[in-house]
Amino acid sequence: MNMVDVILKKKAGKTLSTEEIRAFARGAADGSIPDYQLSALLMAICFQGMDARETTDLTMEMMHSGGVVDLSAIDGVCVDKHSTGGVGDTTTLVLVPLAAACGAKVAKLSGRGLGHTGGTLDKLESIPGCSIEKSQEAFIEQVKSIGCAVIGQTHDLCPADKALYALRDVTGTVDSIPLIASSIVSKKLASGAGAIVLDVKTGSGALMHTVEDSIALAKAMVDIGTHAGRPILALVTGMDQPLGTHVGNALEVREAIDILAGRAGGDLLTVSLELGSRMLVAAGVAKDIADGKARMRAALDSGAGLAKLREMIEAQGGDGRVCEDVDYLPHAAYRLDVPAPCAGYVARMDTTAIGYCAQGLGAGRRQKSDVIDPAVGLVMRVRLGDCVEAGQPLATLYLNRRELANDAAAKLTRAIEISEEKPELPPLIYAAVSPEGIVR
Amino acid sequence: MNMVDVILKKKAGKTLSTEEIRAFARGAADGSIPDYQLSALLMAICFQGMDARETTDLTMEMMHSGGVVDLSAIDGVCVDKHSTGGVGDTTTLVLVPLAAACGAKVAKLSGRGLGHTGGTLDKLESIPGCSIEKSQEAFIEQVKSIGCAVIGQTHDLCPADKALYALRDVTGTVDSIPLIASSIVSKKLASGAGAIVLDVKTGSGALMHTVEDSIALAKAMVDIGTHAGRPILALVTGMDQPLGTHVGNALEVREAIDILAGRAGGDLLTVSLELGSRMLVAAGVAKDIADGKARMRAALDSGAGLAKLREMIEAQGGDGRVCEDVDYLPHAAYRLDVPAPCAGYVARMDTTAIGYCAQGLGAGRRQKSDVIDPAVGLVMRVRLGDCVEAGQPLATLYLNRRELANDAAAKLTRAIEISEEKPELPPLIYAAVSPEGIVR
Repeated sequence: MNMVDVILKKKAGKTLSTEEIRAFARGAADGSIPDYQLSALLMAICFQGMDARETTDLTMEMMHSGGVVDLSAIDGVCVDKHSTGGVGDTTTLVLVPLAAACGAKVAKLSGRGLGHTGGTLDKLESIPGCSIEKSQEAFIEQVKSIGCAVIGQTHDLCPADKALYALRDVTGTVDSIPLIASSIVSKKLASGAGAIVLDVKTGSGALMHTVEDSIALAKAMVDIGTHAGRPILALVTGMDQPLGTHVGNALEVREAIDILAGRAGGDLLTVSLELGSRMLVAAGVAKDIADGKARMRAALDSGAGLAKLREMIEAQGGDGRVCEDVDYLPHAAYRLDVPAPCAGYVARMDTTAIGYCAQGLGAGRRQKSDVIDPAVGLVMRVRLGDCVEAGQPLATLYLNRRELANDAAAKLTRAIEISEEKPELPPLIYAAVSPEGIVR
Repeated sequence: MNMVDVILKKKAGKTLSTEEIRAFARGAADGSIPDYQLSALLMAICFQGMDARETTDLTMEMMHSGGVVDLSAIDGVCVDKHSTGGVGDTTTLVLVPLAAACGAKVAKLSGRGLGHTGGTLDKLESIPGCSIEKSQEAFIEQVKSIGCAVIGQTHDLCPADKALYALRDVTGTVDSIPLIASSIVSKKLASGAGAIVLDVKTGSGALMHTVEDSIALAKAMVDIGTHAGRPILALVTGMDQPLGTHVGNALEVREAIDILAGRAGGDLLTVSLELGSRMLVAAGVAKDIADGKARMRAALDSGAGLAKLREMIEAQGGDGRVCEDVDYLPHAAYRLDVPAPCAGYVARMDTTAIGYCAQGLGAGRRQKSDVIDPAVGLVMRVRLGDCVEAGQPLATLYLNRRELANDAAAKLTRAIEISEEKPELPPLIYAAVSPEGIVR
């Protein structure tokens, strides 16, 4: 197949055949198509898009470009959740134990990735002794015995996606809905997910900045999953402020424990229950979302969720006592309140900038080789719409290197807009997308 | 400078700064920008275009990316002509000697390139003994003494263009007006041209298939030349059939000699006079186009043009007797008439396919390493609008390998459409573009 003809076809806005998509994905995986042709095609796709059939074809080809995890030894449907990523988003550590406590099987393979703050793997590793490395057999054993496990990818999953993703990052071709959708879903399918729940973030701290693009991405992914024969549900949720109050690895574990212990709540709990109830439905554990929500709530109230988190931490070698006493988590040496520069309403937050503020303290990686400091980060002391006095704390920084304080405080202050007028509050849940349609 | 930001800027339809264009061109020339980023940017330019300032900036950067030929030792303005390439287009061999006979200085550096048929260098090399290799000093000496020279590029001109052109060819990013315009004009400026005349072909045998695109390309090039301070004029001419009747290297030399000797005429002569008169104007030799045309015609009628061609051939080591007796040119072993399959009017020609028919006989290169057979090719026996009887020859093939005859005849027959209705004839000159505007 002549790749120039494929590029010209997509450039002209035509639909690529299954064979052409296959050649593209295989050539990306085995390196037989030069990067300069791949990037030209990726850019043409950014401009011309791909239809549902093309996107599904690309997803399936990327899924099968490497190993596919076989979870068939586990009874029942293994359900996975994926979030497109936000700040203060600890839903995984809240909903995985709750869903497992309700009887769902959650076998979760996470990636590490770069970002303003650490990923779920980094958060788990902030718990003393907790490991995210397991053989595939031990991983499956853990899910069979306690119902859940969250570990790092053991297999070389989706090499085609890996190659294309790396290239997209350096060629300005990240923001294409079919490319994002196929990348996410191919990895979920290759990790063996039997059912999938997606959390597509929208707003100032999200990959997708507009609600319409976020809904389109959710719909594209639900379409692929449905074509692939997997139960799949998606929510579009707000990322106009950090979802939880805590941003940073051990700090986010602490918040998850506080929520599972019934000491905290808020938007993080609300979104966790919305997503978790859909996981129960997708896994066939609950009959509908209301039923799922009632089960999740019961597991929360009874303490079964917290007990399950402790089981999981201990099964992965960690110190389960953190679930009883969060002081077993690592502590930062210094705390610093960042005061409001003036009185008024908290009108807007640049959520990404808040994430980078935490990254600057050591909570996230700028480069792959950076080492994360598990203890540092920040705790938000205000939410959108709050009325503050001048000097009242907007957030508390947790840091180990005092010399970073001024810069971080300045960044945080700039990221929060205080206005005289009471702002309209953005919704927390924008839309629910299922194979049946979109509910706003 | 972060190249991803530059790609994203162009992708979003914004205008790149002079510094950004400079970084792009220099990075292409010195290899410091990876090909995958260059090709992503080229594809974004194909979709979003470039304005006149960006296109001029790119041209100047490509021109200065390598050596620039210094023709200042030659008195007067050296004028160059460039054609975007067609089939049976031997204008260079007709107008260079005529313009030089009228007193213009023509110092022409030609490239070889791939194509359905050979380039001007290949045509010159079909003349026994004629060389297209000269030192720069000898090249300048020849122009000073006889007024014209056509040789191969001696310098490493426009390495940025060379890198980008090679990449465009394999990434489906050839058809962008600003990229084509900057590529052509940068090479002309680097070859030292003091004044430029352009022949933009349009139609079935041309790079540009629509008249509007051809005019836009001509205008883009005239704008760049004007910004660069060079007198520049362009014509948009038809390529809906081979311009001359002869297609193939020695065959085209023969036609040029026949024209200069007054034995032939037709569209090739008409276009040569139109272009040549503009060369005389651009070089400051003629006061206007009518004056230029009268001078060209006089040089033709007096035989001064043919005498100048002989001088040039001899100055380049060739056998000047070909100008008196074309039988000194190489001959093909076989001739074969291709008959019309039915009676009717010659309604349409696929000119590119006719070019590839000649290539198949050995007149052009499929790959850089192919060796051209100077003697082979074809002579068209009909023009658009002609009325033919069934069996009447459409063309005569000239070949050295008899086994190629059937395939070539079939290709040629398919390339010519015969219809019962008399067709409307396409114009020969579509538009004239000058810094003052476009005249259709």
